[in-house]
Amino acid sequence: MSPGTAIVTEKHAAMWTDGRYFLQASQQMDNNWTLMKMGLKETLSQEDWLISVLPENSTVGVDPWIIAADQWKNMSKALASAGHSLVAVQDNLIDAIWMDRPTRPSTQLITLGLGFTGLTWQDKMTALRSKMAERKISWFVATALDEIAWLFNLRGSDIEYNPVFFAYAIVGMNTIRLFVDVKRLAEPTVREHLQLDTPSKAELSIQTAPYESVFTELQAVCASLGPKEKVWISDKASCALTQVIPKAHRSPVPYTPLCLAKAVKNATEIQGMKMAHIKDAVALCELFAWLEKEIPKGTVTEISAADKAEELRSQQKDFVGLSFPSISSVGPNGAIIHYSPLPETNRTLSLNEIYLLDSGAQYIDGTTDVTRTMHFGSPSAYEKETFTYVLKGHIAVSAAIFPNGTKGHLLDSFARQALWESGLDYLHGTGHGVGCFLNVHEGPCGISYKTFADEPLEAGMIVSDEPGYYEDGSFGIRIENVVLVVPAKPKYNYRNKGSLTFEPLTLVPIQAKMVNTDLLTQKERDWVNEYHRQCRETIGAELHRQGRKEALDWLIRETQPIA
Amino acid sequence: MSPGTAIVTEKHAAMWTDGRYFLQASQQMDNNWTLMKMGLKETLSQEDWLISVLPENSTVGVDPWIIAADQWKNMSKALASAGHSLVAVQDNLIDAIWMDRPTRPSTQLITLGLGFTGLTWQDKMTALRSKMAERKISWFVATALDEIAWLFNLRGSDIEYNPVFFAYAIVGMNTIRLFVDVKRLAEPTVREHLQLDTPSKAELSIQTAPYESVFTELQAVCASLGPKEKVWISDKASCALTQVIPKAHRSPVPYTPLCLAKAVKNATEIQGMKMAHIKDAVALCELFAWLEKEIPKGTVTEISAADKAEELRSQQKDFVGLSFPSISSVGPNGAIIHYSPLPETNRTLSLNEIYLLDSGAQYIDGTTDVTRTMHFGSPSAYEKETFTYVLKGHIAVSAAIFPNGTKGHLLDSFARQALWESGLDYLHGTGHGVGCFLNVHEGPCGISYKTFADEPLEAGMIVSDEPGYYEDGSFGIRIENVVLVVPAKPKYNYRNKGSLTFEPLTLVPIQAKMVNTDLLTQKERDWVNEYHRQCRETIGAELHRQGRKEALDWLIRETQPIA
Repeated sequence: MSPGTAIVTEKHAAMWTDGRYFLQASQQMDNNWTLMKMGLKETLSQEDWLISVLPENSTVGVDPWIIAADQWKNMSKALASAGHSLVAVQDNLIDAIWMDRPTRPSTQLITLGLGFTGLTWQDKMTALRSKMAERKISWFVATALDEIAWLFNLRGSDIEYNPVFFAYAIVGMNTIRLFVDVKRLAEPTVREHLQLDTPSKAELSIQTAPYESVFTELQAVCASLGPKEKVWISDKASCALTQVIPKAHRSPVPYTPLCLAKAVKNATEIQGMKMAHIKDAVALCELFAWLEKEIPKGTVTEISAADKAEELRSQQKDFVGLSFPSISSVGPNGAIIHYSPLPETNRTLSLNEIYLLDSGAQYIDGTTDVTRTMHFGSPSAYEKETFTYVLKGHIAVSAAIFPNGTKGHLLDSFARQALWESGLDYLHGTGHGVGCFLNVHEGPCGISYKTFADEPLEAGMIVSDEPGYYEDGSFGIRIENVVLVVPAKPKYNYRNKGSLTFEPLTLVPIQAKMVNTDLLTQKERDWVNEYHRQCRETIGAELHRQGRKEALDWLIRETQPIA
Repeated sequence: MSPGTAIVTEKHAAMWTDGRYFLQASQQMDNNWTLMKMGLKETLSQEDWLISVLPENSTVGVDPWIIAADQWKNMSKALASAGHSLVAVQDNLIDAIWMDRPTRPSTQLITLGLGFTGLTWQDKMTALRSKMAERKISWFVATALDEIAWLFNLRGSDIEYNPVFFAYAIVGMNTIRLFVDVKRLAEPTVREHLQLDTPSKAELSIQTAPYESVFTELQAVCASLGPKEKVWISDKASCALTQVIPKAHRSPVPYTPLCLAKAVKNATEIQGMKMAHIKDAVALCELFAWLEKEIPKGTVTEISAADKAEELRSQQKDFVGLSFPSISSVGPNGAIIHYSPLPETNRTLSLNEIYLLDSGAQYIDGTTDVTRTMHFGSPSAYEKETFTYVLKGHIAVSAAIFPNGTKGHLLDSFARQALWESGLDYLHGTGHGVGCFLNVHEGPCGISYKTFADEPLEAGMIVSDEPGYYEDGSFGIRIENVVLVVPAKPKYNYRNKGSLTFEPLTLVPIQAKMVNTDLLTQKERDWVNEYHRQCRETIGAELHRQGRKEALDWLIRETQPIA
C-alpha cells in the first residue's frame, strides 16, 4: 500500500519513501540507512542514486515478481545508459534470509449479491469483453487484486485492511480462467456464486486453476496466439508475468478497463457507500462525545482512542474491519503524516494538545476514510488560524464547480490557495480514489499535483478531499471527507459539456471551536452551515433510530450554525 | 511556431491543430481535408489515426529533418506495434512539388552588448561548460535557434517575428563550432563580437563552418568519442541530426542547460524588459486614445487598427518589429483565438462590438505581448459579466502567492475558477514563457494545464497571464499581461522554502467600462486600483516625457479608481 523501496549495495543502503513518512522513517531507521525523500527536487531517483554509487559495469539484481513492468523498463534503460545492467534474480534474496515467514494467507471468500454490487459478474465480464472487442484485444490478464475482486463480486481478507484475495485471472472472448488457491473454492456459496457446478454458456464458464499456475497457463495462451492477436495487461503488473507475453502480442496499459469501470460507481454502489458513511458517522459522533467526557480524566491515549473508535464502528451493521491502520495522534505526533501509535510513542489525549484522527472502515456496503482534527481545551490563535486555512482549502475543493472531463489534479491547487497566501503548504496530495468495499486507495482518479496521468473525473467517481497542515514537533491538522462526483448545474453550459461538483459522503461535524470565522468568506460560512445541517439531519436521524442519546446531543451541539 | 501537422495517405488527408485554430482551420480548409482537433478527448492522435486508416503493413514516410526525435520515437513505436513502419524520406515530397520556393533567409546579424545581455557570450559558454562538467557531458549540440541566439548574444531576422538566425552550434570542453551561413560573418562588428580575428584562449575561440556542414561535423565529433563520452542534445532536435549520435553516446534532454539558463532573466534583462514594456504601453495608450476618436467615424478596420498600433510602436526607441502577427479582431472574429485579419474577413470597429487586440513587439531591450479587450460603446450585461470572470481569473494568477519550486501548470486552474463556477471555460493554456528580445513563446516554464513537464517557476522567469472567454459567432475576451516571477513575503515561511508571486511588466489600463464591479471582491477591486495606479505613475511619466498629451489624458481617465 505505502511506498517504500530499499536498495542495498556492497557499501550503501538507501530507502525511498514519500513526504507522509519522512519523519517516521528518520525516527525508525538506524544510521546504516540513508533516507531518500521522494518528491523533493534534490532527492536522486533510484536510478540516479545507483549510478552515483555503483562501481563501473555493475549488475543490479531485482526480484521480477515484485517490480512492475513499467519500473523495470525505466530502471533497466537508465542503468544500461550508464554502463550497468539490471538482472532478474529468480530467488528473492530477502526470502532467503527471512526466517519464520508466514505462508500466503488464504481466507474465506465473501460473495456479494446484486444488492451490493448492482451488476453480476457475468454483466461485468460482458462489458469487459465489449471493451476488448472495441480495441481488438483477444486476451486480458487481470493482475490487480482489487480489480479481480470487483470483477467476480468476491471479497477476501488476505491483505490486512484490503478486502481482496490472492488471485490472477485471464479472460478471453470465450474463456475465463481464475487462478486462486483451489481450497477456497470448496465453499458451496462460492461455487454457486461462480456457477462452478452449473452448466452455463461456455463463454461464462469459469475454469479454475491453482494460483501459481498462472505463469504456465499464460505461456500456453501465448503459445497459441495468432499473428495479430493482442494481450492486455496492466503496466503495473509484475515484470515476471509481463515478460511471459511476447512483445509483439503485449499491449500494456496504465489503466485497465476494469480499473476504469470500477472507478465509476453505479447507483447501488453509491447507495451502499452512503449507508456505510452514515454508520461510520454514528460511530464517530459516539466516539467524540465519549472523548469529551473521558479526556479530562487523563485516561485516554492515542491507542485507546483508536481502539474505542474500532469498537464503536464494529457495533454497526455489516462491519468487516478497518480500512487502514488508524492514525490517532496527539500534538507533535500529528505532524507525522502517516503516524500509527505504538506503545513507545503512545501519548495521552489532553485539554492542551490537538488530536488528529484519520480512520476508516470496511462495511459490506462500502468503505470509509475520514479525518477530523479537534481540540478538547482551548486552541491557540495560531492553531485556529492554520486550521481555518486548511478548512478553506477543503471547502474550495468540495464546492468547486468544474467542466466535465477535468482531471482531478487540476483541483489540487484550490486546496492550497489559502495556505500558500500565508506562506504555508503541505507535502501530500489532496485526494485519492476510494473503492466500494474495496481498497481505500484506488486509481485511476485522484486530486494530486503529483500525478498528471489521472483519468478525468466523471459523475459516480469517489475521491477523498483531505488538505492538511503539519507543524513539525507541534501539531498536525487534516480535514478529510470522502466525496462523490456529481453533476452541477451552473448558470451557463459552455459547449454543452456539462459541469461537475462534489457531494460529501462523510457527514461528521467539523469542530467549530477550531475555526477563526473572521478568516472565512460568507460563502465559506454558508458551506459550513449547510454541511452541518446535513450532518444533523442525516446522522441525527440515524443516532435517534439507534437510540444513541449522548452522541445525538453532541451532534446537535456541534452543528450549531456559525456566524 | 504554431502547431499544425498534415498527414496525407492515398485516400485521406488530415490536419492536426489545437483549440486556438479550430474555427480558422475549419473556415480555411476545403472538404478534402479532415480537421483533427487536438486536445479534445475524442480526437485520435496522429498514430491512432494512421493505424485506423492504413491498409495492413503500410509504410509511412516522414522528412527526418522536420520531425523531432521524441516524436519520431513515439510514432515509430506505435506504428510498429500495429504492423506498420515509419521510414525517413530523405527527399522531402513537399519540396519536390513546391515551385518558386524562396531560399533560406540570411539576414544581417545584430550584436548585443553587455548593456542588453548582462552576460558576455564567453560568460555563458563558461556556465554551460560547468553544467556539462557537472553531468559528465563531453559535447553539447545546440539546435534551438533562440538558444543559439541567446548563447552568442546575437540576433537575426531569418524568421518573421522571431529575432533568430539559422544556425547550429557544437560545444565541447575546449571547442566551439558555430554553423551558420559564412557570408553573414563578414560584418566587422560580428567578427569583433565573436572575436573571430583576435587570438583568444583556445577554449573560447569560435570555429565557424557552413550551416549545412553540421551533419558531417557532428559525424566527425562522434567518430572520435571515447567509450564513455556523452553528447547532450535536445529531444526536440530533428530526428536526422539526433541519429548522427550513436545511441550509446546520446543523452537527449527535454530542456537543455541553455533553455533553463535563458528562462531566468538576469537584472539587465529584467530592466530591459521593463523599459520595453513602458514604451509598448505608451504606444498602446496612444492607439486607444486615437481609436476612441476615430471609431465613431466608421473608418477604422481590424487591419488599419493593427497597422496604427505597429506605426505607433515603431516610433518608440529601439523598435525592431512585431513579436507575432497582431490579432486585431472585432465581434465574432474575436472568438477565433489566433485570428489575423485578412482583407476578406476585415471588420470595421464600431460602437456596437467588442474589440480584442493581442499584439506585441520586439525592441532591442525586450519583447512584449499584451491583450486588451475593449468596448467603445455600451457593452451588454453578458459581455461585462464574462469579461469580469476573465478579469477575476487574470487577477487570481497575477496575485497568487505560491511556494518556491511550484510548477506553473498548478496555477492554471486559478485562472478558470470564476468561469468554471458559471459553467464557462476556455480551451487554451493560461500562459507561456516570454523571451527577452527573443521568441515571444519560449520554454521551459508556462501556466498551462496541458503541460505537466514544465520546469518549476523561479524568480526572474517571465510568463504571460492570459485567460479568456470565447463565444463562437459573437465575441472574444482575453486579458493578457506579461508578468515577472518575483519573491513574495507572506506572513509565514514554511520550511524556509520561500514564496513567489508575479509583478506585471505590462502596464496598460484594463477597461473599467467592461467590468461588473459587483462581481469583484474587495481584494480584486484593490488589485485593479493598485494596477491602474502603477500604470498612471509609470506610463504617465513616460507619456509626459514624450509630450503625448492626448494619450496622457486618456490614461488618466482610464485609471480612475473603481469602487
